[in-house]
Amino acid sequence: MTQKKVSIIGSGSWGSALASVLSYNGYRVAIWSRNRQVIDDINFNNKNSKYLPNIKLGKNVYALSDLSEVLANSSLVLIVVPSHVMREIAKEVANYIPENTLLVHATKGFEVTEKNDGNTNVLRMSEVIEQELPSTFKSKVTVLSGPSHAEEVALRLPTTIVLASSSNEIAAKIQKFFSNDYFRVYTNEDVIGVELGGSLKNIIALAAGISDGLKFGDNTKAALVTRGLAEITRMGLKILRTSRCRGLVCYLF
Amino acid sequence: MTQKKVSIIGSGSWGSALASVLSYNGYRVAIWSRNRQVIDDINFNNKNSKYLPNIKLGKNVYALSDLSEVLANSSLVLIVVPSHVMREIAKEVANYIPENTLLVHATKGFEVTEKNDGNTNVLRMSEVIEQELPSTFKSKVTVLSGPSHAEEVALRLPTTIVLASSSNEIAAKIQKFFSNDYFRVYTNEDVIGVELGGSLKNIIALAAGISDGLKFGDNTKAALVTRGLAEITRMGLKILRTSRCRGLVCYLF
Repeated sequence: MTQKKVSIIGSGSWGSALASVLSYNGYRVAIWSRNRQVIDDINFNNKNSKYLPNIKLGKNVYALSDLSEVLANSSLVLIVVPSHVMREIAKEVANYIPENTLLVHATKGFEVTEKNDGNTNVLRMSEVIEQELPSTFKSKVTVLSGPSHAEEVALRLPTTIVLASSSNEIAAKIQKFFSNDYFRVYTNEDVIGVELGGSLKNIIALAAGISDGLKFGDNTKAALVTRGLAEITRMGLKILRTSRCRGLVCYLF
Repeated sequence: MTQKKVSIIGSGSWGSALASVLSYNGYRVAIWSRNRQVIDDINFNNKNSKYLPNIKLGKNVYALSDLSEVLANSSLVLIVVPSHVMREIAKEVANYIPENTLLVHATKGFEVTEKNDGNTNVLRMSEVIEQELPSTFKSKVTVLSGPSHAEEVALRLPTTIVLASSSNEIAAKIQKFFSNDYFRVYTNEDVIGVELGGSLKNIIALAAGISDGLKFGDNTKAALVTRGLAEITRMGLKILRTSRCRGLVCYLF
């Protein structure tokens, strides 16, 4: 039986680490990159030395610069590119993506644009992708996020991660691609919460780094994390309430 | 004007660190201890070398073995003794505690006893205290907890902490005793949540230590913390539902 093919759009450290997971799980992995040096390194050395040094990516991982070829016959498409190029790349992906493939992104951050009236418009990554992709992907964009460094995933250290989709059925299908004995994938339905949490916690992480630089201790860092969690939760609930208020939760907070 | 007096029942590292905070804030602090060596060290050297080495406790901190003297004319009583002696000591405190004083505890853990039918009975520390103290203290026992090491508090590194009381008014009064420029006290009404969280997170901390011992990385520790938080939340909601279900929250979870 031919192994299923997964396409990874983006060849940074996180995309490469996830390629190593999917390869370990027995899939054929096609990585799309614009960087010729990275492509050659992956195809000839089975490594991405620039972004993930000293790690073999595993069997059946190859890289290409031709997006149509990368996406052809793909069972699962994983987009993991920097947030500021997401819209541009999603537009290109839209031209070649198979109609019924599964789609997941693993990009942190927001698209921030200025509106005509001078106000700022902020979109989550799944919103940007859904705007650019065919309407058949509406509400089907799943997000992969979680507390993990790419290097440790590539080294197969025990890691958990979350996969959020408004559809339990889609989440369960994608979960099967990624799960193995060192990579445990939880699913939930909270796409907004996962996209916000994954990005906003990096602000707290910056503050924690500053706290270390100032020679403060564990107490100060714990204060930042504790209050950060409270702030992020508050922000998530506010956005939930103003964007897609559903059910009782809107009346409670 | 005479400074207000605070009584600290217990002379371990956390009690001593909190004594240093209260001294810094201008209170007279009477520490109760059964350990003659600790009492002498506090009174003659202004230190508790056994539990908090190399730290001066500050002005107006003294220690006594006579509980009635420690508690006399106290504006605030802080109990911070090991959980397994809480009931015994609360019984003694009950004999001497001024009727209208404020009462706060900072002890982690539970009282676990076996019932006649062989089942286990588990009580939170504020429940144990309320059972032993005069009925005027019913629902007035406040808990102080939070992410902090005693040594860092004594070194005046920035620290946040939480004070939980079913009465906002009582919480606000106690908050004033402890707050200063390096020690920030948040208040909330969730006594059960704070008592459970402060104890249960130590189970996760043990697992995190084991993970380090096994040479796992940040991902594994982050997995423990993330899933630990989910489990602790679930347990808290379960206990809330079964013990004192109030309002809408009971129907939601």
